[in-house]
Amino acid sequence: MSRITMTVLSVLILISACTSGSKTGTNRQLPVYLDESKTIDERVEDIIPRLTLEEKVALCHAQSKFSSPGVQRLGIPELWMNDGPFGVRSEVLYNSWTKAETTNDSCTAFPALTVLASSWNMELASQYGQALSEEANYREKDVQLAPGVNIARTPLNGRNFEYMGEDPFLVSKIAVPYIKAIQDNGIAVCVKHFALNNQEYQRDTVNVEVSERALREIYLPAFKAAVTEAGAWSVMGAYNKFRGQYCCHNNYLINDILKGEWKFDGAVISDWSGTKNAYEAAMNGLDIEMGTLKPYNEYYMADSLLYFVRNGKVPMEKLDDKVRRVLKLNLRTAMNRNRPWGSFNTKEHTDLARHIAEQGIVLLKNRDNILPVDTKKCRKIAVIGENAVRTHASNGGAAALKPRYEITPLAGIESRFGKEVEVSFARGYSAYTPMIDGRIASPAYDNIQLAVEAVKLARESDLVIFVGGLNHNWRQDSEGYDRESYNLPYGQPELIRRILEVNSNVVLVLVSGNAVDLRFAEDVPSIVQAWYCGSESGHAIASVLSGDVNPSGKLPISFPATLEDCGAHAFGPETYPGVNETVTYSEDIYVGYRWFDSKNITPMYAFGHGLSYTSYEYSDAGTDSFVYSPGDKVKVSFSVKNTGTRDGDEISQVYVSQINPSSERPVKELKGFARTSLKSGESKVVEVELPVDDWAFWDEQLGGWNLEKGRYDISIAAASDDIKYVVSVEIK
Amino acid sequence: MSRITMTVLSVLILISACTSGSKTGTNRQLPVYLDESKTIDERVEDIIPRLTLEEKVALCHAQSKFSSPGVQRLGIPELWMNDGPFGVRSEVLYNSWTKAETTNDSCTAFPALTVLASSWNMELASQYGQALSEEANYREKDVQLAPGVNIARTPLNGRNFEYMGEDPFLVSKIAVPYIKAIQDNGIAVCVKHFALNNQEYQRDTVNVEVSERALREIYLPAFKAAVTEAGAWSVMGAYNKFRGQYCCHNNYLINDILKGEWKFDGAVISDWSGTKNAYEAAMNGLDIEMGTLKPYNEYYMADSLLYFVRNGKVPMEKLDDKVRRVLKLNLRTAMNRNRPWGSFNTKEHTDLARHIAEQGIVLLKNRDNILPVDTKKCRKIAVIGENAVRTHASNGGAAALKPRYEITPLAGIESRFGKEVEVSFARGYSAYTPMIDGRIASPAYDNIQLAVEAVKLARESDLVIFVGGLNHNWRQDSEGYDRESYNLPYGQPELIRRILEVNSNVVLVLVSGNAVDLRFAEDVPSIVQAWYCGSESGHAIASVLSGDVNPSGKLPISFPATLEDCGAHAFGPETYPGVNETVTYSEDIYVGYRWFDSKNITPMYAFGHGLSYTSYEYSDAGTDSFVYSPGDKVKVSFSVKNTGTRDGDEISQVYVSQINPSSERPVKELKGFARTSLKSGESKVVEVELPVDDWAFWDEQLGGWNLEKGRYDISIAAASDDIKYVVSVEIK
Repeated sequence: MSRITMTVLSVLILISACTSGSKTGTNRQLPVYLDESKTIDERVEDIIPRLTLEEKVALCHAQSKFSSPGVQRLGIPELWMNDGPFGVRSEVLYNSWTKAETTNDSCTAFPALTVLASSWNMELASQYGQALSEEANYREKDVQLAPGVNIARTPLNGRNFEYMGEDPFLVSKIAVPYIKAIQDNGIAVCVKHFALNNQEYQRDTVNVEVSERALREIYLPAFKAAVTEAGAWSVMGAYNKFRGQYCCHNNYLINDILKGEWKFDGAVISDWSGTKNAYEAAMNGLDIEMGTLKPYNEYYMADSLLYFVRNGKVPMEKLDDKVRRVLKLNLRTAMNRNRPWGSFNTKEHTDLARHIAEQGIVLLKNRDNILPVDTKKCRKIAVIGENAVRTHASNGGAAALKPRYEITPLAGIESRFGKEVEVSFARGYSAYTPMIDGRIASPAYDNIQLAVEAVKLARESDLVIFVGGLNHNWRQDSEGYDRESYNLPYGQPELIRRILEVNSNVVLVLVSGNAVDLRFAEDVPSIVQAWYCGSESGHAIASVLSGDVNPSGKLPISFPATLEDCGAHAFGPETYPGVNETVTYSEDIYVGYRWFDSKNITPMYAFGHGLSYTSYEYSDAGTDSFVYSPGDKVKVSFSVKNTGTRDGDEISQVYVSQINPSSERPVKELKGFARTSLKSGESKVVEVELPVDDWAFWDEQLGGWNLEKGRYDISIAAASDDIKYVVSVEIK
Repeated sequence: MSRITMTVLSVLILISACTSGSKTGTNRQLPVYLDESKTIDERVEDIIPRLTLEEKVALCHAQSKFSSPGVQRLGIPELWMNDGPFGVRSEVLYNSWTKAETTNDSCTAFPALTVLASSWNMELASQYGQALSEEANYREKDVQLAPGVNIARTPLNGRNFEYMGEDPFLVSKIAVPYIKAIQDNGIAVCVKHFALNNQEYQRDTVNVEVSERALREIYLPAFKAAVTEAGAWSVMGAYNKFRGQYCCHNNYLINDILKGEWKFDGAVISDWSGTKNAYEAAMNGLDIEMGTLKPYNEYYMADSLLYFVRNGKVPMEKLDDKVRRVLKLNLRTAMNRNRPWGSFNTKEHTDLARHIAEQGIVLLKNRDNILPVDTKKCRKIAVIGENAVRTHASNGGAAALKPRYEITPLAGIESRFGKEVEVSFARGYSAYTPMIDGRIASPAYDNIQLAVEAVKLARESDLVIFVGGLNHNWRQDSEGYDRESYNLPYGQPELIRRILEVNSNVVLVLVSGNAVDLRFAEDVPSIVQAWYCGSESGHAIASVLSGDVNPSGKLPISFPATLEDCGAHAFGPETYPGVNETVTYSEDIYVGYRWFDSKNITPMYAFGHGLSYTSYEYSDAGTDSFVYSPGDKVKVSFSVKNTGTRDGDEISQVYVSQINPSSERPVKELKGFARTSLKSGESKVVEVELPVDDWAFWDEQLGGWNLEKGRYDISIAAASDDIKYVVSVEIK
């Protein structure tokens, strides 16, 4: 150790000056896949060669109940998927269906998509998608498992409440803006269930046989619109089989139609445990296998896929195609840096939920203008029926939510009327409680006693608002099984008849997602179809009952008088629910009103039906020309005048019929619609554009769409059974 | 129904054309708080008036074990916090400490921060922070609960392994680049534990009494550097009390010093359940209360805070200040749209983990150059000791991780040497297994039998590599309680003595985060301090043993010969572990080498000590001037030459001593260091800049820092006990 003072040295290098700032060590070139100035396709192609075989296979199956992995090594995030069509489902544990008991996932429950369809309002569909994806963004989801666009073939289907009715045109027109709005917010939709998942009974095994024409004209158009018009980024394979092959790996549906004809560039995701065969899954276009039962490495698209690729049974190009689609989905969603933060449970969202409900509730019947409720006359209102006090949004299967709140009908009615008049409640009947551990629990109440109490209350009241219908119990409007019967359950018809004996002023509010047998209700003066309306359910119902909102919804489904009137039930068990696990759609293209029209059957309430507290007059119908060519658009115009005393919205429908077709065609088919707001006394000219190419039919001989020349009638209608004008045109 | 053909009407309005695309309904003006062209402060100020009182209060406490809420309504995301300093902790359930059993959270375990400190490498600290925050980003965390910068006051502190040693200057210089790199990636650090959490014993209740000078000179500098130099975005309040008030709401520490003097603009987050008083928490600067025991609404900063504000006991400005800080933290992290995606478990990360370990392992002793292992001579290597086969990264408390893998020392040694020579293993001793449900489980093995077996193996071998030390069991190097003794546990000293009787070629590899009593090891020719090195532990140890890597780490802590030699243990139980829940730091500023220097006690291994397989010569030391003024920087220069046959890194240290100070000062204090890579035979001139303002002491009379004029000696050293040159300068 030596001592030196005052030595100044020349400095060669500065190794480490403690006072200097530190720089991060990585000054790496940004790889193409992280370079946001590149296209998504360029970025995807940059990733593929970086991946090991194991990483590629991992991308093709779940890592948890609701997620599939990214590539940790490359910083490609996981994909988080989320039920469902009406809101952001609550969190479950990573590896089970047990609720995670989190406190941050109480969402807005938007009305069921049936309600949205009943509004016939595409702008509202866009707002719905916008709001739903805001909630999904806040919860950091990537893929929203929505919308459900299956066709309501039979009112017994337990899952119809999730869908948008019986008409492929209406479903398509509502689905497209809903999808676009969701994806505009950086959330992928997953259009489901592709395809022909039209019943829950034996859904895991049933094989659907349907003509090519019915497939193309009825069951696929909404999927096609979702893909080719809305640009859906993912599609969910259905549980059932089609022509003997499971839909999740159905070569014809996925490879030929979806990815072939429609040029779908997104990912096909299996319904949860809908994959049944490894080799088919590998070869027939499934991209991500999700599931629920097995360890993840035992998924068909896990170790088995690895084995197939290693042994050359499945070519690497097949795997790369899947990986490309999964990565594209990822870059469109999880890796989209421009996704908004979203928001959750906002007043805007619940206001919108209420608004959708108010536009979708349908006034089926209103004899003697018993509605809106006249509180001057009705000083004592009896609210009867279990659905007046029951919430629904938290049940039903995959569509079940954990809503922050749900206003019951009774709460809504009390809130609206309770300060003016006396509102009393009697339960009237009690549903069985939901299945618990596979067992049906005993009814909580004695229905006879409840009925006596209800009839007594009805007798003492000026008005009875009977809030009944269905619910999301097992074998009602619920996933996994179909309805046990077309009737209203729990003795409601008998109870209502007994109430009518003591008080004829009855309003029947039906909470359901399906048509029910209403033959018993001939003497009920007023019926309101209130669907499942979500968080703001009770407020919306009360708005319509009070007249604060003038009802404007129109039915997206027919209400057959009897089940047997319905096409799916007219041919015996082969057409529903199927025999030997095969169901044959013998009614073919004649679904819903197409069936009633062709068979001259009068339904209880027709497709497109819906009353108002005001009245509308149609006049001056016409088209912008008479002769059109393929590719043209027909502009149909007509005047609608509000001739009543209340403001209102009128949904006008435009049906098209081919005169003397070469093949049998439906009497008429929906090809356009318009929703018009009209103040009392106001008149507007409404114009609807109809692309004539939409009028083609699927020609089995041709194996393609055929727009035949000749005469077509254009019906301007207030409902499918209420045609106001018919205008003829010609296609040359 | 009338029939019209070929009528062309004038069109007044186009209500709803089914074929037109849909626009999203919301064309809302972007609010300022979502406008990324605005400053964070502008955005924060835009949020405050939008919030309800309840929303403000909610921002101030946890919603789950590791998250605090955002504002769902406004789309402000949640804040997700995450242990810890060495990696991204595995997921727990939302509302409990139970592991979530997810499969996507097996992280890279980086070496403990003690290892990083032993590298004296600021660039490496930056790389560490970069890599750790890449992992945190991939896991979508917002706040990384790191680094721990408490001073190692006593080797018994169970949590020293999480910290960076005994010297405030070294801790600061390593912490700053680590913090900057993490925050450069959009992840907030949470510097912990503020302050004086220097023992785990009674940490939840103990009151620390320490002089203002020791507080300022020893215990606070690293926090100050983290805030004023690195710009830390959050700080964690400690469990203990300081001067009678809990640190999480210590008015002096938080309001006066942290937020006052240091102008900290981030958020103070409580240690989990470290909040003990609602009013103090409200008034004394705590911003987010995190915890573990109570329902979240019963947190002190929940309903009680709401009550206080509603009743005017706590002014709204106090609450707004908290909210402002929480929102700022949020905007800096969760709402930072430019955060990289990160990556997880990459080869780059594990390579870095190994590199840090190889730079941090310290060769304490190497008599007769027994290391590196000469495989020509050592044909049979006996690996003895439980730590050879034990992993550590998954234990220890909050720093515990779920590493994807951890290479044990035996695996590393076998991998490196197994092909050349015979490697055998004997456990030698067995630790008690960790506490299970509060009970100590029985030892898994009979230590006597294990010892016999080990001695037999040692006798038959050419070289013994004894891998012992401590572990993360309860009362060893572990959170929540201090070590039970300064000795090596489980009979290791006795076992090693018995091994030495049959084989003198023993290398002792110490796996520990603290100094241990090494008096028993006089006859052990070589000792390697291997710390807790994380995922690549065994590989790094083998690299050093083999000479593939020339050891270069130097001790960030002193190794006292006996516990009583240590300042914290020299005054009886009042100074450690405390009496009546008060511990008084009677050694004052004389912590670590400051104590040994002033008391002329020779430690077993001195602060800054560390050997190499090569040798270095210092020469030509000097400064760029002799007289300096406050604000100046002294440039110290010296040459270092690698005079041995291997390439190596030499860590040079610069200590400063004031000559004739007005107040008593330590003999010397570290004020600079440099790490220099030198090839065999190479010489470099090293320059270290020393801002003279760093040389001030805390003047209790003045109540502030005092840089006294006069002479200062600058010691250029290879270790605190190995000074090569002293250069004098003068401050005028």
